[in-house]
Amino acid sequence: MPKPMMHLAQFLVHGPTYHSVAMWRHPRTAAAGYDWTHPELYQHIARVCERGKLDMLFFADLNYISDTFSGSLAPAIRNATQAPEHDPIPLLSFMAAATTHIGLGATYSVSHQHPFHAARLWATLDHLTKGRAAWNVVTTLNHNQSANYGEEMKPTDERYDRAHEFMEVCRKLWASWDEDAVIMDRDAGIFADPAKVHRIDHEGRFFKSRGPLNVVRSPHHGPAILQAGTSGKGRDFAAHYADAVFAIQPYIAGAKALYDDIKRGAAEAGRPPSACKMLFGVQPIIGASRAEAEDKQAEHNALVPLEGGLAILSGHLDFDLSTLPLDTVMAHRTEPKLQRMQTRYRTATGELLTLRQVAQNHGQSVGLPQIVGTPADIADQLEVYFDQVGGDGFMLSPIYCPGAIEEFVDLVVPELQRRGRFRREYAGTTQRDHLNQDF
Amino acid sequence: MPKPMMHLAQFLVHGPTYHSVAMWRHPRTAAAGYDWTHPELYQHIARVCERGKLDMLFFADLNYISDTFSGSLAPAIRNATQAPEHDPIPLLSFMAAATTHIGLGATYSVSHQHPFHAARLWATLDHLTKGRAAWNVVTTLNHNQSANYGEEMKPTDERYDRAHEFMEVCRKLWASWDEDAVIMDRDAGIFADPAKVHRIDHEGRFFKSRGPLNVVRSPHHGPAILQAGTSGKGRDFAAHYADAVFAIQPYIAGAKALYDDIKRGAAEAGRPPSACKMLFGVQPIIGASRAEAEDKQAEHNALVPLEGGLAILSGHLDFDLSTLPLDTVMAHRTEPKLQRMQTRYRTATGELLTLRQVAQNHGQSVGLPQIVGTPADIADQLEVYFDQVGGDGFMLSPIYCPGAIEEFVDLVVPELQRRGRFRREYAGTTQRDHLNQDF
Repeated sequence: MPKPMMHLAQFLVHGPTYHSVAMWRHPRTAAAGYDWTHPELYQHIARVCERGKLDMLFFADLNYISDTFSGSLAPAIRNATQAPEHDPIPLLSFMAAATTHIGLGATYSVSHQHPFHAARLWATLDHLTKGRAAWNVVTTLNHNQSANYGEEMKPTDERYDRAHEFMEVCRKLWASWDEDAVIMDRDAGIFADPAKVHRIDHEGRFFKSRGPLNVVRSPHHGPAILQAGTSGKGRDFAAHYADAVFAIQPYIAGAKALYDDIKRGAAEAGRPPSACKMLFGVQPIIGASRAEAEDKQAEHNALVPLEGGLAILSGHLDFDLSTLPLDTVMAHRTEPKLQRMQTRYRTATGELLTLRQVAQNHGQSVGLPQIVGTPADIADQLEVYFDQVGGDGFMLSPIYCPGAIEEFVDLVVPELQRRGRFRREYAGTTQRDHLNQDF
Repeated sequence: MPKPMMHLAQFLVHGPTYHSVAMWRHPRTAAAGYDWTHPELYQHIARVCERGKLDMLFFADLNYISDTFSGSLAPAIRNATQAPEHDPIPLLSFMAAATTHIGLGATYSVSHQHPFHAARLWATLDHLTKGRAAWNVVTTLNHNQSANYGEEMKPTDERYDRAHEFMEVCRKLWASWDEDAVIMDRDAGIFADPAKVHRIDHEGRFFKSRGPLNVVRSPHHGPAILQAGTSGKGRDFAAHYADAVFAIQPYIAGAKALYDDIKRGAAEAGRPPSACKMLFGVQPIIGASRAEAEDKQAEHNALVPLEGGLAILSGHLDFDLSTLPLDTVMAHRTEPKLQRMQTRYRTATGELLTLRQVAQNHGQSVGLPQIVGTPADIADQLEVYFDQVGGDGFMLSPIYCPGAIEEFVDLVVPELQRRGRFRREYAGTTQRDHLNQDF
């Protein structure tokens, strides 16, 4: 019996850095004439990834620049740590214009929106991409974002209760036009059958909306839904709604525990566990030889400024790490906010890491395992991670751009295809066709 | 001394009808395989209009389906009167991907948004289009939209006070990165100079925002600004902010009065009157002979269902016209809501029109004058309107699609160019380059 195939998504940010804080200053990025503000780069990436038959291109997104480290914007701006980040939504259309099959996903925060606006945007994107749209539903997780929107930050539970209702309103709006409502009977002059277009008359704890949506039924009946939070409420949201879940787990044991938990949650929510795919972030570093790959890894990691790692880690922990000595052992800290990222405080063999080491790692890859070696080595490591976890695939994040994405598609994808671990052709045309393809 | 040249914009809706309720059912629309839900149509239109050197492609937008006529959604849905309307924002990118010069504008309501979100979106669009973005700032004008967003409708004055502050916050955010903030010094590892990125710390009557924006300074320093309201507050908003104003005036006298008022307002706001261009809507109907054009006009107008005209007019008046007899003389009505559109209640020669006639006209063109004849006739009529009003150009709206836009570009634009009334080449590459080009 053949082993199951992987799902692969390409991670992107509409900005100068992705998971690697060094990306913008990497010599290969500079040599390639990287211009992250113009759409041509993203259209190129889209064509490359569609050539590689990847499931999806995916943009992360933030609505703020973090000042958590040292109480100043300066470290984030100096090091381009998740700053600037331009709005990725308009890029989805640019990439759709250059492709025909690959899924097109982006993060879009529900925290400062009304569901009517979001439902309308995402139904439209689903039409324009002919069913290739995917929405990563997130709630605000940072006081910097709340300050940009002039609001107080809300507790996690309330944020997710609101997100649940937000999704319910969107689903009602997406279903407010029956699939056969549009008739376009030109002789009789009847565009659509009014009996097949419905008010939703939603009145809930957080939202009111009368509807109907002024967008006709979309190919996907709304976009595919993605989710990335791993709090209890986040997992519950994923179990109910997500077609795919993104996760960062540096080690296989943690990945397997999370995988099993998400699949159990989906089953408890009455869905087939295979309807909710788990994609784990990895940072491939590819060389013609193992030594060349290790040199590339060392070169890249040396380009990560410690201040950049501290800035991004402070933001993620919502804790000002400038208040701690660099040689503090992170696993010994007792502050509640520092408990969330315990998996990052140890090596694979259990050695405890100092703040300096944890921040350095965070600046390199934000906790994504670096997968280093020849294309065959990379394929080996992906197979081991995938088979031990149980599925379902990976979110790829490059160390330079353009260049690293092309190497993965041109060198690793064919190796995975030869091994029967990745599709050679798309089986369908929509985002759900790709994600729901079970092997 | 040569006469001044015109500015021309192409009006679009991301839906089945524009100003003509008959457009979706017109035989030429049907014969051309019109599919208003897919981006290929709009990319085609964009290429055609760029070939014609037009200043701009512009999408109107609404966030509701009107039930004002007879208290039911049915007439709007049956007749496709401003329903459905998909979100035009993602289409701007699709059209940008197919063009290099033409401006790309859309309506985007500020009524249910926070300025941080809008400023971020529009600065991003300005980057991705390399300075071709144009934002038509509108406030909610319909109780149906308010109901979709679960809000009460606000009085006009408060809506415009909020819109003024909205624009001020956006402008502060667009200026929060100095033009020379991004250094990208790869050797020193300095992406941007923190001293050149600023908080805005806005605290006003309607909004709070700390900033900075996480989008670097855009080519236009934000998009070009468009405006379409003609209330006192709307004109004041235009005088302060607008690069161009759209208006519907069936007759030249009304157009001239509005033109003079807007220009006076701009001067009073301390701006050169030429910085705020006035574009008047027209509906060209072009034939190889005058008789052919008049036949086309008659054919088109006969395809407009009276119910469609009543539905769209009821929505625009916010008044249920099913309560009035069809032969009522509209100029005799005393209801306050019916006073707003007095210019539509008379012919050019002053004859008073019945509700049936006004609604029929409204379904044909929403008050846009139909400009009918050979390409030379059309050019003649545009010249007369333009020269008598004093400027600045036109917003073109087709009676079928595709087809009518192509006819204008291929037949009327060359005629205007021969007469020295329209540009033969773009003088610049940005939206403001085109709009600010003075002749």
